[in-house]
Amino acid sequence: MINVSIVGAGQTKFGRHDNYDLRELFVMAAHEAIEEAGITPKDVEAAFIGNLSADQFNRQTHIAPLMADFAGMKGIPATKCEAACASSATALRAAILAIESGQHDVVMAAGVEKMTDLTTPGVIETLAMAADQIFEAQPGITFPGIFAILAVAHMAKYGTTKEQLAAVAVKNHANGVHNPLAQYQMEITLEKALSSRMVAWPLGLFDCSPITDGAAAVVLTKNKKARKFTDAPVKILASEQANDTMNLCDRTDLTSLYAARTAAYRAYKQARINPDYVDVAEVHDCFTIAEIIATEDLGFFKPGKGGAAVEEGVTQIDGEVAINTSGGLKAKGHPVGATGVAQIVELYHQLRNEAGKRQVKSPNVGLAHNVGGTGATCVIHICERW
Amino acid sequence: MINVSIVGAGQTKFGRHDNYDLRELFVMAAHEAIEEAGITPKDVEAAFIGNLSADQFNRQTHIAPLMADFAGMKGIPATKCEAACASSATALRAAILAIESGQHDVVMAAGVEKMTDLTTPGVIETLAMAADQIFEAQPGITFPGIFAILAVAHMAKYGTTKEQLAAVAVKNHANGVHNPLAQYQMEITLEKALSSRMVAWPLGLFDCSPITDGAAAVVLTKNKKARKFTDAPVKILASEQANDTMNLCDRTDLTSLYAARTAAYRAYKQARINPDYVDVAEVHDCFTIAEIIATEDLGFFKPGKGGAAVEEGVTQIDGEVAINTSGGLKAKGHPVGATGVAQIVELYHQLRNEAGKRQVKSPNVGLAHNVGGTGATCVIHICERW
Repeated sequence: MINVSIVGAGQTKFGRHDNYDLRELFVMAAHEAIEEAGITPKDVEAAFIGNLSADQFNRQTHIAPLMADFAGMKGIPATKCEAACASSATALRAAILAIESGQHDVVMAAGVEKMTDLTTPGVIETLAMAADQIFEAQPGITFPGIFAILAVAHMAKYGTTKEQLAAVAVKNHANGVHNPLAQYQMEITLEKALSSRMVAWPLGLFDCSPITDGAAAVVLTKNKKARKFTDAPVKILASEQANDTMNLCDRTDLTSLYAARTAAYRAYKQARINPDYVDVAEVHDCFTIAEIIATEDLGFFKPGKGGAAVEEGVTQIDGEVAINTSGGLKAKGHPVGATGVAQIVELYHQLRNEAGKRQVKSPNVGLAHNVGGTGATCVIHICERW
Repeated sequence: MINVSIVGAGQTKFGRHDNYDLRELFVMAAHEAIEEAGITPKDVEAAFIGNLSADQFNRQTHIAPLMADFAGMKGIPATKCEAACASSATALRAAILAIESGQHDVVMAAGVEKMTDLTTPGVIETLAMAADQIFEAQPGITFPGIFAILAVAHMAKYGTTKEQLAAVAVKNHANGVHNPLAQYQMEITLEKALSSRMVAWPLGLFDCSPITDGAAAVVLTKNKKARKFTDAPVKILASEQANDTMNLCDRTDLTSLYAARTAAYRAYKQARINPDYVDVAEVHDCFTIAEIIATEDLGFFKPGKGGAAVEEGVTQIDGEVAINTSGGLKAKGHPVGATGVAQIVELYHQLRNEAGKRQVKSPNVGLAHNVGGTGATCVIHICERW
């Protein structure tokens, strides 16, 4: 049982931000969340901030007090949490536990990443540090290659096609058109996706999420106090996290993520629901194959059926379960340390019926699935309108 | 009120480890803590791991699941916490909150850093990223220079002398002689300290803590369950953290750390004690001046009196309040991300009367003071024998 609600949410535009640095991006998202909650920065009692590697991207460590100070939250405990691309979901979980502990009543969970200060090869090299340096990164593989291995395994075992992978990109780009904060607000055709430049077979350019700057933040409080902040809080039903071996060589199955299945099992149990209850989900589509695997790991579809489901439109906004209404990492963008909380920001707006042209019809339950690396970390949150 | 106890503790030898990498150092400390608690890795339900920048030091991010997996703790939630040199104290606080939340019963807090993979200039450059990159690091100042500014301010305001700074180093080296895990187990004379090579006036080589590899870990559980694990658990009375502006230019006082005073005030209040109750304290002596300021910020001595106190022997093992019995960061060593939990490991042994030749006579209350950067973060834990 979790007794925590979201009472404010903020997110910057995702994309390339040449005119704002790390702290400015954070402040924009944090202040929007704080204003949404009807409070001031002084009311925030603690902050947990997700960030993968400002060390490499911006030559800045120790970012949590820096961000908190610039946002007007001097004095509070502020801690950075890192778990690769799942960093801010782990920050959210730490924030939830802090409220559940009784030590804090109003806590911010946030995420921020400014990736474009490095060149593209520099970004790729930095991201590869989230794989096992000794057994994966040093030998020379980078993430497109690692996820290509999963894609090949999925194709070999289940007959998943390149067209099904492309269908993920087409759907998420179609959703992104209606998200004013998305990095790419443009539709793409199946033909365009299929004919894009090859990155690591079978993954072409449109199978890959982009390099992105951005920040996202939410304000959390106890359920008991939530209605003092907003008329429409969003209740957190479950917050679960699992890890796995990092190195793919140590895994027995490359068509599914153990950490995702484990965290999902725990989360459904904690929320006392099953996958059928979920109306809208933000899943970690860092590559198109990752979304297909996610929808299977989460129990929306049987193993091997995720590809067909997206091709048949089951995961569109008006489908059985709307997946990545925000545009997902693919079209909304993927500022790695901010992605986990940005998923929650989308669910917050969906569950409050504030998502405009990408609004799912009266959703009750939303799920966020945030993956670190190739699934050495997976964090799952389940939220409910209230 | 905190209802959490430490039931196991482990630490590697601190120093230069050419034959062990990051994960091996972690496993050694984690397994010692696990064995001390009389459990197996499978019994640990969650882990929070402090680390400053394996990104820069070891080209490895996403270390928490990697460390957990290699220690036999696959599947559990494992999150890295970072707050510069206070990283593992923030991990400890997150672990305590996780137990207090009721979501986990047995949690590991740990820290690990392997700094010697980089050259000394590389280490200094990496550490400088924990200062404000824009306003401090880019203009060219590094930490010895920053702490030299504090020392000069303290000398100007209170008449603190270079001899008093050196007395900190002499005491901590004397203590380190009796700590088999310390990096330096050698006494130094006041003359040697005073005549050491100048680093940043007034700080000479013996005013600076060294570059260190090492890991430390503790196993925590609810007070209620603690005696199932050990006959002599150590109870945590307080866990508080505060932040401050990072950039020194924004501060009104350079002779004291606002974050330390704030966290200390909160911690004494939470523990329902005052500074007089503290028998043994591990404080963050990254530079000798930092220990003098710490003993004042913690209320052991009035502002400006910390220098005289160390010179008079008040902070020796047999003094009124024993400071840095482990040898402190100065002699024990300072593997930055491991330091916070290593302080707790020392208190654990002191409060259980297991500290051998450096044992304080029957201490009841211990305090750990862990600082990030120049005090943009301070975390304070207070522990009690039980």
